[in-house]
Amino acid sequence: MEYNKRSAVSTVPNAAPLRVGFIGLSYSKGWAIKTHYPAILQLSSQFQITALYSPQVDESLATIQHLKLSNATAFPTLETFAASSNVDMIVVSIQTLQHFSLLLPLIEHSKLNPNLRYLFVEWPLACTVDEAEKICAAAAQRGLQTIISLQGRKSPYVLRAKELISQGYIGEINSIEIAGNGGWFGYERPVKSPDFIYDMGNATDIVNTTFGHTIDILQYMCGSYFGRINSMIFNNIPQQEVVDEHGAPLGRKVKKSVPGHLLFQGTLLRGNVPVSCSIKGGKPTKKFTKNLVIDIHGTKGDLKLEGDAGFAEISNLVLYYSGIKSNDVNPNLNQTPTSNTHNPMPNNYDSGKELMEVYHLRNYNAVLGNIFRLYESIADFHFNTKKIPNLPSQFIMQGFEFEGFPTLMDALILQRLIDNVYRSHLIGSTLNVSNISQTI
Amino acid sequence: MEYNKRSAVSTVPNAAPLRVGFIGLSYSKGWAIKTHYPAILQLSSQFQITALYSPQVDESLATIQHLKLSNATAFPTLETFAASSNVDMIVVSIQTLQHFSLLLPLIEHSKLNPNLRYLFVEWPLACTVDEAEKICAAAAQRGLQTIISLQGRKSPYVLRAKELISQGYIGEINSIEIAGNGGWFGYERPVKSPDFIYDMGNATDIVNTTFGHTIDILQYMCGSYFGRINSMIFNNIPQQEVVDEHGAPLGRKVKKSVPGHLLFQGTLLRGNVPVSCSIKGGKPTKKFTKNLVIDIHGTKGDLKLEGDAGFAEISNLVLYYSGIKSNDVNPNLNQTPTSNTHNPMPNNYDSGKELMEVYHLRNYNAVLGNIFRLYESIADFHFNTKKIPNLPSQFIMQGFEFEGFPTLMDALILQRLIDNVYRSHLIGSTLNVSNISQTI
Repeated sequence: MEYNKRSAVSTVPNAAPLRVGFIGLSYSKGWAIKTHYPAILQLSSQFQITALYSPQVDESLATIQHLKLSNATAFPTLETFAASSNVDMIVVSIQTLQHFSLLLPLIEHSKLNPNLRYLFVEWPLACTVDEAEKICAAAAQRGLQTIISLQGRKSPYVLRAKELISQGYIGEINSIEIAGNGGWFGYERPVKSPDFIYDMGNATDIVNTTFGHTIDILQYMCGSYFGRINSMIFNNIPQQEVVDEHGAPLGRKVKKSVPGHLLFQGTLLRGNVPVSCSIKGGKPTKKFTKNLVIDIHGTKGDLKLEGDAGFAEISNLVLYYSGIKSNDVNPNLNQTPTSNTHNPMPNNYDSGKELMEVYHLRNYNAVLGNIFRLYESIADFHFNTKKIPNLPSQFIMQGFEFEGFPTLMDALILQRLIDNVYRSHLIGSTLNVSNISQTI
Repeated sequence: MEYNKRSAVSTVPNAAPLRVGFIGLSYSKGWAIKTHYPAILQLSSQFQITALYSPQVDESLATIQHLKLSNATAFPTLETFAASSNVDMIVVSIQTLQHFSLLLPLIEHSKLNPNLRYLFVEWPLACTVDEAEKICAAAAQRGLQTIISLQGRKSPYVLRAKELISQGYIGEINSIEIAGNGGWFGYERPVKSPDFIYDMGNATDIVNTTFGHTIDILQYMCGSYFGRINSMIFNNIPQQEVVDEHGAPLGRKVKKSVPGHLLFQGTLLRGNVPVSCSIKGGKPTKKFTKNLVIDIHGTKGDLKLEGDAGFAEISNLVLYYSGIKSNDVNPNLNQTPTSNTHNPMPNNYDSGKELMEVYHLRNYNAVLGNIFRLYESIADFHFNTKKIPNLPSQFIMQGFEFEGFPTLMDALILQRLIDNVYRSHLIGSTLNVSNISQTI
């Protein structure tokens, strides 16, 4: 089997590190301090935080002090932050609800910074497709190389599964089943979790987050968007019991307006493959099955991805493979514009052999690891670490390529799918979504 | 835990056995000789074959001779067979395609037999809902107690799961996932299998058979019909490779017009429970999951039914249970008109305890066993073996009761569901099916 598609360990580049301006990094709380910050710290030859923006400048100063960000400046206004020429890449890690109102002026003001090249935004991109399209268009018009944190694409398990599929190790995919169980949308609400994730309209619900990441990973592994889809969305748990950090009930209930369950079924465009998917909220509790299971069946073998909680993008997984490598691999699958086309092993290596593989990294920290690998892939691209000949200076979307990273265009296409998932439920129809992957 | 809902071992009745007239029993081939015949043989104090009908009377005579059916007469015409007063129960085990044209005249002519009380028909009842309704109406008008071979309801695993659910051992059901893999509708066609099952219109396709039995079992266990449903039906394998009995290809391909895969999702009426279901054809091949998996999750526990092939009604299964018995059991669930309401254990027995159970009968022959138990339940009803007070002399449908057996009305309701499954696929809509369980 070939293992050559993995992201190589980044070497120290000869050029100066990318100067990062951060929106949403706080030393004391939030997602960025647990993920983006340690990733940047581990890639200190490639990235360096040089600017922070927060309307509360005291908070930025405290973060600079606590994290010893000696090269960083705290900007009190978006205008000055966006215009600072000491920034090559802006990272935005705030509530999705604030994305649209922040990103458009940010992109506009950044026209004064000739050095800005990269814009990295957290998933979900926006609360509506319309907002996502406007953000995408503004970033494209500004000439920025964008990145979206659909970091599940960088999971080593996902990449290994994608390798096995694309190299013919399970033959042609003929059916897929997904069942996920996880998230904050069940019977209990941790007292410390923020209220906004339980209200509709903030794009933080189970469809946007749990399903969004999972189905992005599935499409990426299989190299196909969807053709037809149908969905049913449930809020069977309209009230949650508030619990403390040990799970003990605090004796009060609160309303929840976001769904607690999604049923989704559809067909992959490539091969008209049936896909069955059930994603539910609530703490992982299943006794006889893992809380995340992705079963991919092919004419020559099977792949299974399992995790303890229904978040494929931030969970450590186990990948099981069993099958017989087929000869009739679609050669186009391995050809991607940004990939290194030098392939040390011929495609028919292993042909006809019955093979089995269990792939698991016992101590892999997926919460940090997948974000780390996303930063690594940005560095690989920027410094051309893999010495890919004729590497373009910019690309619009990753699509299903091994190399590169997902962009705002990949995010927009996924948001269109999620929009159709809600629409299918609301109008009670199976929908044709085969046209949602066009770029703008 | 209570185990009192099982069908009791039938005791020898004081009355004479039910005299069975059989259509479709051949000593040399078919389904009946493997299932109905040994069931009747094992219940020889309760059932006795007294008549056979086939237009080929030689075949009936050969079957009588080979099986030593010393009390049986071979009837050369449907009229004389139907009119014979030496028959209490007629069993019909022939191709579904022939049901409608045979059953209507059979019921009509049977008016000359004052002793006829039972009509037992193989599932599927008919090729269309319209035909099924006409058969049901004719049997009801004739005053017959009907039986349909939805024998999965008699599987000991299904009944044990139904007990656990109805007695509150998993709390309230909140989600269900089903994945089945089995049947003749995959890449290969055994050379000996009859061609008609691969052609549309014969009601022998994966939706009518594999899905029909499985979803009937699910509804029965959960005590609920469906509210909304959506389906997608695939024939991604329009040609099959003909193989010999050892699975070796014979070098020719044949056309297949029936589907090879069904995606189904819906909501149980009771509790608006999301149900995800994927049923595919082809020989069982899955490596990392069983070929039949029914996962039922509740607020207090989980149930899993597993089998080696995707035929819940004829497979030996394993039932896994884990949970905490809740106090708040719906008391109506255990109350059924024909059930023995004497309950030796109070409902709150086991309450609050964390329990686990694996239920498996290593040598259980499910192909025969479930049909045997169906005959046993007919005998239980006819002879009132369980001494149920005020047992009615007839009932229209079993519905979700423990006692009794499924009838043609149960079959008709299931055929309406299957009809809607096809319709949902064809028109691309989620359908409301909450009104299909009305009787005629």
